[in-house]
Amino acid sequence: MNDSDDSNDEVVTLAHGAGAGSMRALIDDLAVSRFADEDEPAADEVGLAALDDGSVHPLESGDGSVVHTTDSHVVSPPVFPGGDVGRLAVAGTVNDLAVMGATDPLGLTCSLIVQEGYPMSKLESVFESMQTACEEAGVRITTGDTKVMRSDEVDGPVINTAGVGVVPPGGAVTDAGLSPGDAVIVSGTVGDHGIALLSEREGFGFGGDLESDVAPVNDLVRAAMDAGSVTAMKDPTRGGLATTLNEIAEKSGVGLELDEQSIPIDDAIASAGEVLGIDPLSVANEGKAVLGVDADDADAVLEAIRAHPTGSDAAIVGHATADHTGRVVLDTGFGRRYLSEPEGEVLPRIC
Amino acid sequence: MNDSDDSNDEVVTLAHGAGAGSMRALIDDLAVSRFADEDEPAADEVGLAALDDGSVHPLESGDGSVVHTTDSHVVSPPVFPGGDVGRLAVAGTVNDLAVMGATDPLGLTCSLIVQEGYPMSKLESVFESMQTACEEAGVRITTGDTKVMRSDEVDGPVINTAGVGVVPPGGAVTDAGLSPGDAVIVSGTVGDHGIALLSEREGFGFGGDLESDVAPVNDLVRAAMDAGSVTAMKDPTRGGLATTLNEIAEKSGVGLELDEQSIPIDDAIASAGEVLGIDPLSVANEGKAVLGVDADDADAVLEAIRAHPTGSDAAIVGHATADHTGRVVLDTGFGRRYLSEPEGEVLPRIC
Repeated sequence: MNDSDDSNDEVVTLAHGAGAGSMRALIDDLAVSRFADEDEPAADEVGLAALDDGSVHPLESGDGSVVHTTDSHVVSPPVFPGGDVGRLAVAGTVNDLAVMGATDPLGLTCSLIVQEGYPMSKLESVFESMQTACEEAGVRITTGDTKVMRSDEVDGPVINTAGVGVVPPGGAVTDAGLSPGDAVIVSGTVGDHGIALLSEREGFGFGGDLESDVAPVNDLVRAAMDAGSVTAMKDPTRGGLATTLNEIAEKSGVGLELDEQSIPIDDAIASAGEVLGIDPLSVANEGKAVLGVDADDADAVLEAIRAHPTGSDAAIVGHATADHTGRVVLDTGFGRRYLSEPEGEVLPRIC
Repeated sequence: MNDSDDSNDEVVTLAHGAGAGSMRALIDDLAVSRFADEDEPAADEVGLAALDDGSVHPLESGDGSVVHTTDSHVVSPPVFPGGDVGRLAVAGTVNDLAVMGATDPLGLTCSLIVQEGYPMSKLESVFESMQTACEEAGVRITTGDTKVMRSDEVDGPVINTAGVGVVPPGGAVTDAGLSPGDAVIVSGTVGDHGIALLSEREGFGFGGDLESDVAPVNDLVRAAMDAGSVTAMKDPTRGGLATTLNEIAEKSGVGLELDEQSIPIDDAIASAGEVLGIDPLSVANEGKAVLGVDADDADAVLEAIRAHPTGSDAAIVGHATADHTGRVVLDTGFGRRYLSEPEGEVLPRIC
């Protein structure tokens, strides 16, 4: 196609897919301005304007709400240390549902796009991973779609999963519910997925001990919600913990104070991050949850998470305040600074 | 990546994405064998093994079922006569929900994959089309995802939409419910999308009077369901009417007898089909429904569809029989032959 007429036109950049401010501006411009409901949302309703991990639709019967979410997974390479695009596709959508409070999905869709000539044995392996992840999460693929493109048209496999679940009345958890005083818990070490993937892509071996954390967290989240009052949740994917906490602070209208020393980071991930020049707080995790918890329940929820097989590194990393609304203050032990979103850093096809 | 080890391996082919037997074999092998529930489905439940247009999940409250569906839209070119990938993405998913009986979607997801450098003005135009189609269907985009790939990694925009709706108890309609004696109605002319798109792609102008039929059909389907007992439904997308009717016949365990003269085909589409060597019965439609209807209600349902602004060409094209189970017999006026699925014909990126 001749695009010469568009030579002076604004174009899509990699930053538009990086999960921070540029992406939100694009989504605002393309989608929120067109599709968001201008009416005040009903009780228990979460629509597009909220830009949360999914949408929440109250049932007319009053018996709760339907939670819906989607992600397209374009990770490169499709097989990486600790996982592959299949495992990522299941975990990504299960986790988005879980952090909205829907820990028992009704089902997932699987929409596969793959290129002509792709080896069937590799595709089988991707689906094998999906099966394993589904078994871990206690969920099934219940419908799907298959498209084949030429090998010069897509560098796949690309897998979209959408997920649907039901929560009881008042049972949806958003990323906007944090109140001053609430504790902030992360369910384990941060930075693993992004740094393992980047190390692999850049050809650093680091002794082969770096692995993505990609895993379903719905069972862990269920345990946390059973143990106390969870006021806000999000999974720290693109843009990492830094972006996630800034979003929670801004949407909740609170400030956050973080104790850097208490943030769990694997030693090998921290070392690799230094070599690569990448902050583990700013890159994607794919098997973690960030939870805001009522202060009175914080110890009980932390204990429940730590008792979970995948939660032994969980920690209380900070708390919400009424000060510096919408900002995240990091206490490094040597001083205090704002923890900003990694706007400039562009890591394409990380998930 | 060095794929030389896979040189003797079976690979993905374009036929695997063509909507007929090869695709179903791939889906059986990759997905159904791994994810389908081996238990007999509950009443009102439709899972992966049914390979229907979506899945149906009964609510624990007994107040009906959640219907869920997905499609990734990879159409090339992204703008075609009568529509574009945005309109297609909304109509495709609205229609899959509608033919399962869910004519009032709770919401759609929109998962966009676009290449670096894509002109923003063209992307705006695609979303403008989505907005128009959403307004026609009375539905909103309520959540989504955005990924950017390099321009040598994807020939986009590629848009996945998933949709969710709720039907009352017993309200889901499958493609397996046809009984001998039921009438078969198509809601309008067939072959328009596939032939308009192929004509454009092959550079045939045909005087510019060929247009895709891409449109939401949920309002028309609602009118049909209000007028009588609809026993089976499907939208005749990839593989066209021929594939759709063979699937309905096989899954319902009935035969079908079709009167070729009664099948509505636009004159310009029929002529173009002859020039292109493509049978309008074998290519995708994107704004049509095929309905199985109780014989006693057939006239009333047909009348309701014809009264709809998009249904004036609707026709009763045949009926189900207890004979030649799983096969479709076409009465051409000169004789009778089986109408087979277009297995050999591969039209990639038609939707």
